[in-house]
Amino acid sequence: MKGPNPDLNTLKKIFILQDLQEAELAKVWGASVPREFREGSVIMAEGEPGEKMYFLLEGEVEVTKRLLLPIDKTALLERIMNRQLSKDGVTLGEMALIENDVRSANVTASTDCRMLELSKENSLRLFNENPAMGVKILFRLSQLLSQRLRKSDGDIIKLTTALVVALER
Amino acid sequence: MKGPNPDLNTLKKIFILQDLQEAELAKVWGASVPREFREGSVIMAEGEPGEKMYFLLEGEVEVTKRLLLPIDKTALLERIMNRQLSKDGVTLGEMALIENDVRSANVTASTDCRMLELSKENSLRLFNENPAMGVKILFRLSQLLSQRLRKSDGDIIKLTTALVVALER
Repeated sequence: MKGPNPDLNTLKKIFILQDLQEAELAKVWGASVPREFREGSVIMAEGEPGEKMYFLLEGEVEVTKRLLLPIDKTALLERIMNRQLSKDGVTLGEMALIENDVRSANVTASTDCRMLELSKENSLRLFNENPAMGVKILFRLSQLLSQRLRKSDGDIIKLTTALVVALER
Repeated sequence: MKGPNPDLNTLKKIFILQDLQEAELAKVWGASVPREFREGSVIMAEGEPGEKMYFLLEGEVEVTKRLLLPIDKTALLERIMNRQLSKDGVTLGEMALIENDVRSANVTASTDCRMLELSKENSLRLFNENPAMGVKILFRLSQLLSQRLRKSDGDIIKLTTALVVALER
């Protein structure tokens, strides 16, 4: 199914894999399973348990979270957090994998998507058997999470400011 | 200054160091410098460059961020993000270290504090020389950042909801 020619050039563009040598990329490829998702299909559902992470090789996904208030009593308002494109070297689902927690957001395929799926078990095995590679991946993963946290904390400051202004009107 | 008896039992309580063996904790201790901060002193200032991270061994700190709007034209409102206690196994300043970015928040000592300071250079050297230890630390660091991100994203949902309600009044 994976064929003799692993797509290492595409894998190299994944942000958290950017420091790996070709032989290391081949190990990640070997430990993963190719997956395809059709346009419109749900890749992850917020609140569900998740034991797999995905590298987005081709396509586009939409990441959303539910807001707390019902609109019209029929639909929950969803906040579109962002669109993620394969050219951005996106990893999906890594939070649930690291934390043993449920999925933190919904991810839907906005186009047909080609992904590589890596289970928690296989990723831990990769890190244990190749710790130097593990350091490279986990350092970039920490960097990615740190950047996202910085952005979220910035959004909190903006929203808090807007709320103070709205309440003072 | 560090003396013959490194405080490995205290170091073991730091969240991101919890998986280390005693010999590994001793390496972290050996690569670090003990620091003391008096009550009220500024440990980190938001927006400043930072190349060091700190393990809080004893004491309590307050983490704050500036809001965007001036209050009374004299003071910027500060948002108290949280209080961190040494018993919680706190690491400070790890985001700037991972990201080559400026400090994301202010950290002030609310009591006299005893810390261990680890430079970026020394932490990278530790990870390279001891990759199996690096994997343990970076996996827990990813977990920590992931938990904080989950909390921040939850706060964004609450604030967005409150703002929608406030604007609809």
